[in-house]
Amino acid sequence: MKELKSITKLTDSFQRLPGIGHKTAEKMAYQVLEMNDDTVEYFSNALKEVKQKIHHCPICGAYTENDICDVCADESRDKTKVLVVSYPKDVIAFEKIGSFDGVYHVLGGVLSSVNGVGVDDLNIAQLFNRIKEQNVSEVIIATNPNTEGETTALYLAKILEHTNVKVTRIAYGLPLGGHLEYADALTLSKALEGRKKI
Amino acid sequence: MKELKSITKLTDSFQRLPGIGHKTAEKMAYQVLEMNDDTVEYFSNALKEVKQKIHHCPICGAYTENDICDVCADESRDKTKVLVVSYPKDVIAFEKIGSFDGVYHVLGGVLSSVNGVGVDDLNIAQLFNRIKEQNVSEVIIATNPNTEGETTALYLAKILEHTNVKVTRIAYGLPLGGHLEYADALTLSKALEGRKKI
Repeated sequence: MKELKSITKLTDSFQRLPGIGHKTAEKMAYQVLEMNDDTVEYFSNALKEVKQKIHHCPICGAYTENDICDVCADESRDKTKVLVVSYPKDVIAFEKIGSFDGVYHVLGGVLSSVNGVGVDDLNIAQLFNRIKEQNVSEVIIATNPNTEGETTALYLAKILEHTNVKVTRIAYGLPLGGHLEYADALTLSKALEGRKKI
Repeated sequence: MKELKSITKLTDSFQRLPGIGHKTAEKMAYQVLEMNDDTVEYFSNALKEVKQKIHHCPICGAYTENDICDVCADESRDKTKVLVVSYPKDVIAFEKIGSFDGVYHVLGGVLSSVNGVGVDDLNIAQLFNRIKEQNVSEVIIATNPNTEGETTALYLAKILEHTNVKVTRIAYGLPLGGHLEYADALTLSKALEGRKKI
């Protein structure tokens, strides 16, 4: 029995998703075959819509379905406090906690010599424009705690040195609910470094 | 920040796939946003195609993209030997091993009083027709080794008693590569029951 071509095509597509191997992708493709027509139609349209409707906010670079994102459009947000993140998804992570009342700036990546990402590839010039135009008082850097995120943070701190803006970095340490015995050495040393008087 | 509606829609769709929870589904939806337009278009079409092109073989009930499935269309297959399975996917599992030279019959489910699946809901009448018309000599029952599969197998064996057909059931026992110590009690007892002289 030859393979069913449409199943192979769909399996290929599912395999492009994060953490999905061939066997799981094939299982998913057969599951689609068991769904009713409307569900599959909805699924198929949802895929296209995501690409058609969502784009980057022209001000901060976050994902939005409107002209500018909800955060930038919100008059009540403190526009003088800018949280700098690497990716649009990071904005969503912060918005979920709901306690940050400033605005965001998405760099669109991290400096990486390995992947050939230089200063001009990130939205850094626009960050400077915003600092000038919006009278920004604090830039909080929230890149990921890895080599590239660290490099990007240090670079930003350095070039912002000459402005009047206060540059801060979010704290790294032991995650809440974590166990000391399971924490890796780097996290532990960061937690020790960042210790505070209680 | 409000949720992005298109992401919510796509997340809902991904969540309908086997073994995918909300968090993973959301991660997948954002991954789609990062894919290029062509990849998403391909994915979206692949979903629809699976439903449009694949249907059940009118003879055996297996999945096919043609008028009748490859197995039923293959002149070299032994039409007198029918392997009875519950689902179209089971046919694919057997075809992958490649050593069975007979044909299949897909019941389309198992007898289940809990799910309200009765004799008339399965392709049993058609199995009788095939037995008569194709001069079938052996019916091999390969339902899953659980209560419902077992019930279905026993029911089929009983109603086929009065025909001249030899009814067999595939062997259940310890899986190859398995360890005795990890095998569950039922599998072990099945393996003991099914012992053979060596």
